[in-house]
Amino acid sequence: MLISEAGEFGLIASITRLLKRNTRKDIASWQNLIIGPGDDTAAWKTIPGINLATTDIMVEGIHFDLSTTDWHSLGWKAMAVNISDIAAMGGIPQYALVSLALPGNHSVTNVLSLYKGMINVCNIHDVAIAGGNISDAEKISVNITLTGTCRQNPLTRSSAAAGDLIAVTGYPGLSSAGLSILKGTAKVPLPAARLFTGAHLRPVPQVTTGLTLAQMGVMTAVDTSDGLIADLTHICEASKCSATVYSASLPIHPMLNKYFPRDYLKLALSGGEDYELLFTANRNLMQNAKSRLTIPVTIIGEITSGQTGKISVQDMHGKPVHTSTAGWDHYRQQSYA
Amino acid sequence: MLISEAGEFGLIASITRLLKRNTRKDIASWQNLIIGPGDDTAAWKTIPGINLATTDIMVEGIHFDLSTTDWHSLGWKAMAVNISDIAAMGGIPQYALVSLALPGNHSVTNVLSLYKGMINVCNIHDVAIAGGNISDAEKISVNITLTGTCRQNPLTRSSAAAGDLIAVTGYPGLSSAGLSILKGTAKVPLPAARLFTGAHLRPVPQVTTGLTLAQMGVMTAVDTSDGLIADLTHICEASKCSATVYSASLPIHPMLNKYFPRDYLKLALSGGEDYELLFTANRNLMQNAKSRLTIPVTIIGEITSGQTGKISVQDMHGKPVHTSTAGWDHYRQQSYA
Repeated sequence: MLISEAGEFGLIASITRLLKRNTRKDIASWQNLIIGPGDDTAAWKTIPGINLATTDIMVEGIHFDLSTTDWHSLGWKAMAVNISDIAAMGGIPQYALVSLALPGNHSVTNVLSLYKGMINVCNIHDVAIAGGNISDAEKISVNITLTGTCRQNPLTRSSAAAGDLIAVTGYPGLSSAGLSILKGTAKVPLPAARLFTGAHLRPVPQVTTGLTLAQMGVMTAVDTSDGLIADLTHICEASKCSATVYSASLPIHPMLNKYFPRDYLKLALSGGEDYELLFTANRNLMQNAKSRLTIPVTIIGEITSGQTGKISVQDMHGKPVHTSTAGWDHYRQQSYA
Repeated sequence: MLISEAGEFGLIASITRLLKRNTRKDIASWQNLIIGPGDDTAAWKTIPGINLATTDIMVEGIHFDLSTTDWHSLGWKAMAVNISDIAAMGGIPQYALVSLALPGNHSVTNVLSLYKGMINVCNIHDVAIAGGNISDAEKISVNITLTGTCRQNPLTRSSAAAGDLIAVTGYPGLSSAGLSILKGTAKVPLPAARLFTGAHLRPVPQVTTGLTLAQMGVMTAVDTSDGLIADLTHICEASKCSATVYSASLPIHPMLNKYFPRDYLKLALSGGEDYELLFTANRNLMQNAKSRLTIPVTIIGEITSGQTGKISVQDMHGKPVHTSTAGWDHYRQQSYA
């Protein structure tokens, strides 16, 4: 059945049933929800503290294409990128509002797949979808606003200081490699292809890592959405400092090295949408963090006191590495929360 | 300068400057804001209570057209419709996140006009724009998520009971009349045209009214976004009841009567986007509410115990009035928070 046949009210009734049936009932955000989907607003109980809120949109033809993603993955990713923003503040995600705009000639089944993808990643991270909006539009856009809570000072991008070490979780560049495979511009055997496309389609937000870092006293973090160098530039501009990155220290996944032998460095430095955490801390704290965290954490460079926002990439001999450092350098998307 | 020339970061810097310069600094939401635009998320202090959240989108070609609105009005309305949802719960609006998607060939000046429109209505209702997102897209869409707080039980649509009287604030149908003037399908002299187009372009959310109703013990309200009959249907469906509306009791604005002599009843019953409050209460409470509120409040009918969701419109002789009661009856937009 098409959306235009089910009608807006029919579609919302189906979504509401799905949300009620599939959301984990044992999570705090669900239990504190007073009014869920169906009224003028959602409502939930709050406790004193710090509330976080972020919003991110995925637009068809700009951020995704139905030829390179399925609806379930689209839902997962649209939600995961918002959860990642909360993770980058050291927060615990709580409530999502989903604003979906799309033409009426899509099927209700596909819309429900999209919501299933969202609910899956929500259930892992204790998020309740509290409400939203469905609208007609020529192209699909999925706009999610997510709230969270923070028990200590949020991790910001404006608190880095010269002398801090810079670290990143996971393996940068996998998502970008995955996109080139999905677009057909790169071909790799199936097991490796799954690793890359999985990183692109279903990123895993680093909520536990962000929370641990904040609890340990780390102050500075961002998630890697725009690309390692671009995101490090955000930190350096907000903190009025510069940075040196050692290319030989970058955590290059063996599969990235193997299947992208000419491009792996560029992918690792400039490929976006990894949704790992990039953070800085003084030497002691960084050693502590590395030993406490159970995921791969790699020190890749150092914060310096040079020209605000300038990032130098050096090879093992201290020579500058020339590489595209632009990240998402054209007008596509930028969040300011 | 075009957005594509200023670049995403240049545009966000301009917006952030505008927000900092033009937002009223004495409002509680601004003072409790810990992290404003510029980081992974916004952050603000919370107190124990009930948090409200709503989201609404305006899509070019679906909900508006640049031939019938200016950018400032577009910003005002996109924000006002969200504030209206908080008002309909009896809440106090607090923080907005603005997700704007549009082609890079629009001018930065127009985007800043859009934000000025938002800030103007925010300053009246003590709302702080805490962050957002800018994205490329083929068509303009303005998606706002707004939070609020509620000191008592929220006004819901599911609490109406047979015997309740039904009342509406203001004069329904003015916005719809305004749209027909903006589209050129109706012509009226200038002073009246201003009344109608103003109602359509710059609706005034009924925050104080919603708050007063909730404090007085009224339990049931919605804002009139879909049209009087359609919105009353929402109440009756959620409350599992029916309703009778007396057409002779409807508050018809003299100008609507004068310039739309054939259509005024249809406009009042089915014209959407008035953003007035439609509420129900028992007889005593309703009399109290009418005397307490300083804006026009008109009793237009009664909640009955008939078939769920059924609305009967009767003339002064008790005969059924046949009129289109559909409101926004095609697939355009529906909020579920």
